[in-house]
Amino acid sequence: MTPAETSAGAAAGATPTTPAESSAGAEARARIRAGFTGPTSGMAPGLVQANLIAVPADWAFDVLLFAQRNPKPCPVIDVLEPGRVESALAAGSDLRTDLPRYRVWEDGQLTAEVDDASSVFADHPDLVSFLIGCSFTFEADLARARIPIRHQEAGRNVPMYRTSTACRPAGRISGDMVVSLRPIPAAQVAEAVRITDRFPAVHGAPVHIGDPAALGIRDLDAPDFGDSPVIESGDVPVFWACGVTPQVAIAESAPPFALTHSPGRMFITDAPESDYRQ
Amino acid sequence: MTPAETSAGAAAGATPTTPAESSAGAEARARIRAGFTGPTSGMAPGLVQANLIAVPADWAFDVLLFAQRNPKPCPVIDVLEPGRVESALAAGSDLRTDLPRYRVWEDGQLTAEVDDASSVFADHPDLVSFLIGCSFTFEADLARARIPIRHQEAGRNVPMYRTSTACRPAGRISGDMVVSLRPIPAAQVAEAVRITDRFPAVHGAPVHIGDPAALGIRDLDAPDFGDSPVIESGDVPVFWACGVTPQVAIAESAPPFALTHSPGRMFITDAPESDYRQ
Repeated sequence: MTPAETSAGAAAGATPTTPAESSAGAEARARIRAGFTGPTSGMAPGLVQANLIAVPADWAFDVLLFAQRNPKPCPVIDVLEPGRVESALAAGSDLRTDLPRYRVWEDGQLTAEVDDASSVFADHPDLVSFLIGCSFTFEADLARARIPIRHQEAGRNVPMYRTSTACRPAGRISGDMVVSLRPIPAAQVAEAVRITDRFPAVHGAPVHIGDPAALGIRDLDAPDFGDSPVIESGDVPVFWACGVTPQVAIAESAPPFALTHSPGRMFITDAPESDYRQ
Repeated sequence: MTPAETSAGAAAGATPTTPAESSAGAEARARIRAGFTGPTSGMAPGLVQANLIAVPADWAFDVLLFAQRNPKPCPVIDVLEPGRVESALAAGSDLRTDLPRYRVWEDGQLTAEVDDASSVFADHPDLVSFLIGCSFTFEADLARARIPIRHQEAGRNVPMYRTSTACRPAGRISGDMVVSLRPIPAAQVAEAVRITDRFPAVHGAPVHIGDPAALGIRDLDAPDFGDSPVIESGDVPVFWACGVTPQVAIAESAPPFALTHSPGRMFITDAPESDYRQ
């Protein structure tokens, strides 16, 4: 990923604000449709961002049950019935084109990465799409509290790790939890917990603070998804449950077909984060 | 229902306590297996109670999606895969025998009411069972705050009403929301809101306070389910979303088969309410 590919630069210098216009989501989606392929951290701050997992209708119950049993990594914010592509959370949206990048999975194997999923939906007309809240959503609130978002500052994708923590299985689906990492200055960790705890629909409070080994993470510099972290002196590693978790479950459980977002490249809704703040 | 049929007498005079022993749930279920058929309000105070809806596997996705889209009336606390009858929330439990009374639905018609569902599960081996949190759960907390539980004091079932508020449809399932009524002294209404708001998994804060007509309820004395209310002078009618909502949806949506609890006659888990308090 080149710096130009990410949206981080746009947000890093500016003071995050609540979305000035209701069109911020539509504008972000239009930019993505027009070819933007980078991570979406920092885009349309204040709007809810979402992970995507779409499976054939025959697998939809298993996925929804997996999410219901694992609400921390898989908080469902919308479900689109077979073949539907417009989310109720974003008028005029189109899941076929409105994510920067997609991953195509066949029998649990990642077989392609594409920037447009129109042909995928055409070839698989019974896909049920699940939108799962993303922790990018609460980054605006963290920034407002002057908590540094290291990956945004560095123009990188957030680092994500597969853990050794098993999710609760559901039907034919099982897999380990994935977490995202934000290194946070020690004095601000408690505030980061307090802020993110208000947002259970986008993963809520951290699942782990300070001990990567306890999560089965051996090398922070070698994330399983995204870019390597920027860790400043005095930072504590803080881990949030991550919506990439279903992708590990797909690799493990091998449904005949699945479509997901590419890690860090989310669907941007029109829903203000405040709708999901408790 | 005779007074002897209800458990209300046991709780009305006593100060509700947190469950003294972990066996309180098992004892309540044993009592029910042994023939108790009354409402469960006031039984095993401090333990989570649950509504039941079970449908053939082919309808399970629609039901789970309906619940996901209507979390206020349908907060799912457990889902049992096809044919399973022991809930993860109650070791040694058996959904075939551990509810006081069941309703059998065929093509949307209520065709039978039974006290034992063993033959139902035998005849329908692919039933997927959903447990939905019940507002009986937070009655112990209300009582601890000295908020009167009128139906318990009177030895009656809680009154429940079908409203004119449509739930969000999901797949083949649609229907109006059902609410339970607790008349609360005006000075204590705010406290009742504050207490129940902490329990989103058992319907949380009231959906409506003080104006039955706005919910489409014409006559408080003629509830659609349960017994007529006891309303003291100075009481305000307070309505909570109710887990009987799926039964209205079944009547409306007519799946070929469904099994539910009878209103007010719940499944008692071993889970302490504190596990679900925010």
